[in-house]
Amino acid sequence: MTTAAPRYLQDFALGQTFASAQYEMTIEAIKAFAAQFDPQPFHLDEAAARDTLFAGLAASGWHTASVTMRLLVGSGLAVAGGLVGAGAELRWPRPTRPGDVLQVFSEVLEIKVSPHRPERGLVALKSETRNQHGDVVQVMTSRLSVPARGH
Amino acid sequence: MTTAAPRYLQDFALGQTFASAQYEMTIEAIKAFAAQFDPQPFHLDEAAARDTLFAGLAASGWHTASVTMRLLVGSGLAVAGGLVGAGAELRWPRPTRPGDVLQVFSEVLEIKVSPHRPERGLVALKSETRNQHGDVVQVMTSRLSVPARGH
Repeated sequence: MTTAAPRYLQDFALGQTFASAQYEMTIEAIKAFAAQFDPQPFHLDEAAARDTLFAGLAASGWHTASVTMRLLVGSGLAVAGGLVGAGAELRWPRPTRPGDVLQVFSEVLEIKVSPHRPERGLVALKSETRNQHGDVVQVMTSRLSVPARGH
Repeated sequence: MTTAAPRYLQDFALGQTFASAQYEMTIEAIKAFAAQFDPQPFHLDEAAARDTLFAGLAASGWHTASVTMRLLVGSGLAVAGGLVGAGAELRWPRPTRPGDVLQVFSEVLEIKVSPHRPERGLVALKSETRNQHGDVVQVMTSRLSVPARGH
């Protein structure tokens, strides 16, 4: 985890990048998440997963998304007042597998300030979640609500 | 939960709708999810949440998204081979609060078949997650990979 000073809208710049810490997806955690939120054979049981589209146990995409959030919260993004998303777009180009070590690489795509609401703006962030081989398991574009300094 | 026959690409039609079961968001579950995946004050602690953008404890958007998945898995959607998302777009128009009872209402927006890959198609689904007052806490458009019957 990085300890960073709180970051305001003025502290973001296009093209700025952030790398998170790493997070290991254990088989136990994959099954526990699936049992609670996505109870399907390919997320719950190795044998049953073999004959599915995933050809083996895979984490729920929502597990990958939730772990990505965990990594973003601990990263140098450090938005003042917290990381608050207005929305997000997700793709899962390949499955997250048991034992994968995930890390999130983010880049600022867009910064939007509205003249009607100068106290907050939106920062669009592209976050790639990669495994230990560098393969991308999730691509997310999110819009964060970020306070402006001095309001 | 609805027990439905497995549904193939041919069984989907534009405008078709699906309603899920209901799911209560307890304060304990909200805090447990946040501790694991989104450890920020407004998801973890009532007192600390009061002075934030959320003005009170709110569930992580990823918790709402994960519960939405849980409700979709148990719903009449019943895609043959399982619910497998290629991607999703999410908005959270208002927070999910402790005690909220969530239910998901889905509608088929688009059905895409590729001549190059007749054995599977994509079904675009709009899913609104509403609380017990009918307020929408999440709008999701997801693309599901659905097998065609007879392939």
